[in-house]
Amino acid sequence: MAEKRNMLIAQSGGPSSAINASIAGAIMRGMASTKIDQVLGAVNGMQGFLDRKIISISDQIKTSEDFKLLYHSPAHALGSSRYKIKSDDTDTYKRIVEILKEYKVGYFFYNGGNDSMDTVDKLAAYLKETGEDIIAVGIPKTIDNDLELTDHTPGFGSAARYVATSVAELYLDTCVYPVPGCTIVEIMGRNAGWLTAASALARDSGVPAPQLIYLPEVAFDKGSFINDVKALIEKENHIVVAVSEGIRTKEGEYLADTGAEADMFGHKTLGGVATVLEQLVKNNVKVPKLKTRAIQLSTLQRAAAHCASLTDLEEAYQCGYRAVEAAVNRMSGVMITIKRVSNVPYIVRYDVGDLSEIANKEKKVPDEWITKDGTDVGDDMMTYLRPLVTGETAGTQAKGLPRYFRFDLNKLI
Amino acid sequence: MAEKRNMLIAQSGGPSSAINASIAGAIMRGMASTKIDQVLGAVNGMQGFLDRKIISISDQIKTSEDFKLLYHSPAHALGSSRYKIKSDDTDTYKRIVEILKEYKVGYFFYNGGNDSMDTVDKLAAYLKETGEDIIAVGIPKTIDNDLELTDHTPGFGSAARYVATSVAELYLDTCVYPVPGCTIVEIMGRNAGWLTAASALARDSGVPAPQLIYLPEVAFDKGSFINDVKALIEKENHIVVAVSEGIRTKEGEYLADTGAEADMFGHKTLGGVATVLEQLVKNNVKVPKLKTRAIQLSTLQRAAAHCASLTDLEEAYQCGYRAVEAAVNRMSGVMITIKRVSNVPYIVRYDVGDLSEIANKEKKVPDEWITKDGTDVGDDMMTYLRPLVTGETAGTQAKGLPRYFRFDLNKLI
Repeated sequence: MAEKRNMLIAQSGGPSSAINASIAGAIMRGMASTKIDQVLGAVNGMQGFLDRKIISISDQIKTSEDFKLLYHSPAHALGSSRYKIKSDDTDTYKRIVEILKEYKVGYFFYNGGNDSMDTVDKLAAYLKETGEDIIAVGIPKTIDNDLELTDHTPGFGSAARYVATSVAELYLDTCVYPVPGCTIVEIMGRNAGWLTAASALARDSGVPAPQLIYLPEVAFDKGSFINDVKALIEKENHIVVAVSEGIRTKEGEYLADTGAEADMFGHKTLGGVATVLEQLVKNNVKVPKLKTRAIQLSTLQRAAAHCASLTDLEEAYQCGYRAVEAAVNRMSGVMITIKRVSNVPYIVRYDVGDLSEIANKEKKVPDEWITKDGTDVGDDMMTYLRPLVTGETAGTQAKGLPRYFRFDLNKLI
Repeated sequence: MAEKRNMLIAQSGGPSSAINASIAGAIMRGMASTKIDQVLGAVNGMQGFLDRKIISISDQIKTSEDFKLLYHSPAHALGSSRYKIKSDDTDTYKRIVEILKEYKVGYFFYNGGNDSMDTVDKLAAYLKETGEDIIAVGIPKTIDNDLELTDHTPGFGSAARYVATSVAELYLDTCVYPVPGCTIVEIMGRNAGWLTAASALARDSGVPAPQLIYLPEVAFDKGSFINDVKALIEKENHIVVAVSEGIRTKEGEYLADTGAEADMFGHKTLGGVATVLEQLVKNNVKVPKLKTRAIQLSTLQRAAAHCASLTDLEEAYQCGYRAVEAAVNRMSGVMITIKRVSNVPYIVRYDVGDLSEIANKEKKVPDEWITKDGTDVGDDMMTYLRPLVTGETAGTQAKGLPRYFRFDLNKLI
């Protein structure tokens, strides 16, 4: 029997409410494994890992209460980074392997989105190529819901629940005054409109909002927008418009291009598409006394654990748990995926997907789930979305406020 | 025994999560009274009332479930208005009385903030002066918590809970990247800093945020702000700054003055103080790689019923209930007030206050509850705030999304 080795987990990419439920699952399975000795964590993803910022999770998680708090805490408990390793940067992969061996790590887990999966994919390939006996597995996480091979991604359901709930509440707020009102809500999602589409669930609260939905999958036309807003305000008096931060004109220009330089992943910082649309309405929609307001859900939507979906947290936990299970069963270069078995009752099973089919790809909203006029989503989308936001979390409230688990990230080993 | 007469309730001012709990209480007591016939509602406050936009609440509330949904629904179920009646505008008061008599109203209730209480005060005085047998009572409501004579106001606790929860979540979000981060959160409160002060409750979640708190009660100094932000970022790396929309320089200039004209109450539209501070930081705080982000909680904070405080909803309900009780006991020109008996255990009793001592006044945060440097609040404030945010609401969820009660506001009688 092979000697026990350590497992190491790191987190990357943007925050979500469910990301720590995933590491809670991974830690739980790792601590239970006969093949795993210590459970380690890298601080601030690959960037911290390369600086040997490594903590002992086994030493820091002490009680069942710690697990419960970690499960409910939003935003990477281990910290994140945005650190891109080039395909041909073998020096860096070599350094990674050296550090993994130094810490006796036999199982490496990376919890993140597309870019993180690319890193695991390349690392797994390098490990295989060089014949190293180390397993690398990906654990999916992104509120953008844009990973291939999986029905949806952990983190999405909770963000979707917050977005839909907030849009319903903002609609009621918009309605209170007799004057016409137009509230424009900006939602995250640079290239994929899943989260913006989830705003349509507000209608399950019994409100007609959002009356218009703009996804990055559809070219944005200013003239149609102005006409649609005017017609709807004249008809309904109060409307909410849900818009993705990443909408572009048919020429491919971002409405919210700030002129900022792209980051190392080639992502540009976008800002204030709601404000751009607000100005379009103010300048072009001539309805007397119209009150227009732009609202950015900003980082609130990815951190709002108080509005998490229990379905999402449970699935995130399972993805982490099963990633460790796959690893001890000698699977490498894979990511845990969720397969939907049925909508009613909602049943999923878990599988593994080959990272090479996931890395650097973006799953977009299919054309046939968007209405013909491009300003709404159809029944297929609603059926897809509904189960993902269900279930209220028990939460971890004390004195009316949430409690969190926080690792001591300075206690390096 | 006097013949039964109708009661009429109207709502005014800005939305909150608890305002409909108050009318639920008033309706419940009104329907149970032997002195009250029909329970009527005016649509869009005094403005709609003067246009005879009146519905029958008795006809529209049909089940206990309706009461429960109404109790949990944010933002004026009857609609609001911002309609100011001048003290000497006796013509309008005369018209109000004519309409009240036309609809056989013996009891009039107005649910709102300072401006609304001014209207009830003047109406009650006019009714008394002219010898009309009609009672007018105020039901307090404002997330600003700035009404005199009452320990606090319905709506404040729920908004406070949302603000503190969001600040805690935003802090965790700010911490995930290794680079220094400064998140500036803009909170409502034009002249009174209660809601911004409530951000300090985030610390009860175990986070150190907010590191700086700026209230309108303290003159804002740009130089000190820049120095404080720089020192704190160098010390803690990640900080959250909570700022009231209404902060002013010592010369009395709003930081966020948009140059917009004042409304009929003399209120100026303010916008984007967080963005102003973000620019101050970007231009003046020279810390390498510092990431600064401005977040406006905007109307989210006043509509977020999904994060309501049960204590707040219960008190709002009681204020409505007891307003009707006071009215049938022939009290007029008063508002229901909340008196705090003890903090631990938290005990309150209800009283009535004379509207002339409430109308047009603003209760500000006392100097001694603000720390000497003017950038934080002290223990007295924390002790005051804590009970107000406690208690999770059972909510009224279906399929993971809230459900609401909505009156048919077009079904006029």
